[in-house]
Amino acid sequence: MVELRIANIGLLATPEGSSARRGAGQDKIRLVKNAVIGVTKGKIVYAGDGENAPAGIAEYDAGGRLATPGLVDAHTHLVFGGFRQHELEYKLAGMAYLDILRSGGGILSTVEATRAATRDALYNKSAAFLDAMLAHGTTTAEIKSGYGLNLETELKQLAVINDLQKKYSVVPTFMGAHAVPKEYAGNPDAYVDYIIEAMLPTVAEGGLAKYCDIFCEKSVFDIAQSRKILEAARGHGLQLKIHADEIEPMGGAGLAAEMGAVSAEHLLQASDTDLSAMAQAGTIAVLLPATSFYLDKNYARARAMVEKSIPVAVASDFNPGSSPSYNMQFVLNLACLKLKLSPAEALTAATLNAAAAIGCADTKGSLEAGKDADIVLWDCPDINFLFYRYGNNQVHKVFKEGALI
Amino acid sequence: MVELRIANIGLLATPEGSSARRGAGQDKIRLVKNAVIGVTKGKIVYAGDGENAPAGIAEYDAGGRLATPGLVDAHTHLVFGGFRQHELEYKLAGMAYLDILRSGGGILSTVEATRAATRDALYNKSAAFLDAMLAHGTTTAEIKSGYGLNLETELKQLAVINDLQKKYSVVPTFMGAHAVPKEYAGNPDAYVDYIIEAMLPTVAEGGLAKYCDIFCEKSVFDIAQSRKILEAARGHGLQLKIHADEIEPMGGAGLAAEMGAVSAEHLLQASDTDLSAMAQAGTIAVLLPATSFYLDKNYARARAMVEKSIPVAVASDFNPGSSPSYNMQFVLNLACLKLKLSPAEALTAATLNAAAAIGCADTKGSLEAGKDADIVLWDCPDINFLFYRYGNNQVHKVFKEGALI
Repeated sequence: MVELRIANIGLLATPEGSSARRGAGQDKIRLVKNAVIGVTKGKIVYAGDGENAPAGIAEYDAGGRLATPGLVDAHTHLVFGGFRQHELEYKLAGMAYLDILRSGGGILSTVEATRAATRDALYNKSAAFLDAMLAHGTTTAEIKSGYGLNLETELKQLAVINDLQKKYSVVPTFMGAHAVPKEYAGNPDAYVDYIIEAMLPTVAEGGLAKYCDIFCEKSVFDIAQSRKILEAARGHGLQLKIHADEIEPMGGAGLAAEMGAVSAEHLLQASDTDLSAMAQAGTIAVLLPATSFYLDKNYARARAMVEKSIPVAVASDFNPGSSPSYNMQFVLNLACLKLKLSPAEALTAATLNAAAAIGCADTKGSLEAGKDADIVLWDCPDINFLFYRYGNNQVHKVFKEGALI
Repeated sequence: MVELRIANIGLLATPEGSSARRGAGQDKIRLVKNAVIGVTKGKIVYAGDGENAPAGIAEYDAGGRLATPGLVDAHTHLVFGGFRQHELEYKLAGMAYLDILRSGGGILSTVEATRAATRDALYNKSAAFLDAMLAHGTTTAEIKSGYGLNLETELKQLAVINDLQKKYSVVPTFMGAHAVPKEYAGNPDAYVDYIIEAMLPTVAEGGLAKYCDIFCEKSVFDIAQSRKILEAARGHGLQLKIHADEIEPMGGAGLAAEMGAVSAEHLLQASDTDLSAMAQAGTIAVLLPATSFYLDKNYARARAMVEKSIPVAVASDFNPGSSPSYNMQFVLNLACLKLKLSPAEALTAATLNAAAAIGCADTKGSLEAGKDADIVLWDCPDINFLFYRYGNNQVHKVFKEGALI
């Protein structure tokens, strides 16, 4: 007897396991028609065919719909002040993203707004995003700091993320190395030292972040600066992530492999050599196709990565500049239409592999006994339909740790 | 004294006039801060600053939000049987749209499903789409037949569209020339004769359609066949539209200009000469960027069209194959991000110019005294924000002829 029986699931679709699936394994998903999920104390205790399913104290009728694991958004910057809609006109005038940043706009204008915002204001705004993301099927999200760029504001952002953890399933990443703040303009090495000497020890001692991430990019942080920060972070017990080879080919993907980073993100310009190093090291590729879409860039070479047996995840990159959308359904449309992942590969990329990229694949990312009951029921007959339709929210209902949202 | 006063509008943004705006006029929109709209008997009687606004019997507080005209979707195929999610896998395997059509899939598989559907089933499915479109800000839509390809089913589709007119603001277009049905495979001229002899007279006599449209495309209908059908349609008093130069450069845009068509649609491959002819003739360009997005094609040269003073409209092309989304908000994102229209030009393209493309610019498409009170309140401070954010429905409330939806 289970506490809750979610019955009459037309099709259950899920990857399986507690670590990232790679290469030919990424498209191996379990499909069960006429399925039932049994839930007790917020955990899945049964996921399979209706005939062998346990009885339940309560029952929810899924109405023949598709069930998948809750979506996991492995890369967001959703704690921020302000918005940047005025940059739309700069973009239309042909100004490039890094030029906007160099001119004091871009990330730096969000830094100003985030420094000016109170902790309460940031909490309320971020909580509203997470509520909306839940309504769109995202049950777990990673969140990066990096709009403070001074100790006080980085700590404020991380405090907000830690506050959000009490209500939401979120994973905190410290990203003081998101840009060089105006106080250190022209002197990035001094800012690197400030991160290492002032920020990292405080973040680590406070247990405020699980990961350290860095924007390794031309005019931002070069390979040597990135390595220095990541080595220091590793020394403090933080796990590593890198924004790698997004705009210019810098070798960030190779650095991620070399440093044993959990993941490398973006990867639009990553070289074959560096991808092979990632495959060898087991680095997860977190691809952000909505950013390519929004910035009119090329898309990462997802098929080459799958063929090299790199585990591929996809994420929204939600932020107020280069990716002003949190909608993982659209990210999945892009995963198929633009990254050319199969629907099965895309589902794995947005659930199990994404969970692995943020260190929670033991409890999230698949519909299996023992995992958290984070479940989305979709107004769809199958995953082809889910990823083919777009522009409307296809969520029917979301269960978060067994509770109907 | 007005019946309804929509007060506390933070920003009112609207084009003005009752005919399409072209060239440098397309970006001339009226912006009023702290505005009020007065409505009586479903019509706007006042739209302007709050200080000079009339009193109202009832009042609605817009909460400082942005108000625009209801969006007008000037090109849809939303009455159809079935869906075509299985084609996602063909697409990922690299099969081209016209190859899917030639193999009996594509439009022809929707024809099978539409022939098999009852009139009630088609009505209910279409009404649900129109309800969802209203919830996303679309208050008026054109709908084409063309999934029957025989007299009986074309009439069934048009009957459904005419039924929908009783509840929704929709404009019917006859498009028997959407594809060559399997009964006429290899003999398109005979099907052209059938359209002209059997379909057009019945459609015209019944007053079932305002426009006749045709898919002028390689392997579908060539220029001579298109001209023959359009001449016959014009003879029956129907106004003309053409799906022109979408996939192959066929000269359809030039034919639209030559025939005095109200609009030419798609236009991805239209030549400079044909665009100049459109500009001269006053043909409206109805651009469908969501189809380019979905099919991974180039985008129409909207900036060249604006520079040539062609009035530009945008529409969803909603259909189950090449554009499985009805979301005009996303079309507006694409209008800015991919067609490179300015936010003001894009707003005009989705309201006044779209209304002109379907012959209702005298009552729709702008917020002005005398027009229908089709109004969207957005959870946005300005149109830059509206077109910059994407992936979430930004509608706060929709008024349709003065009634809150």
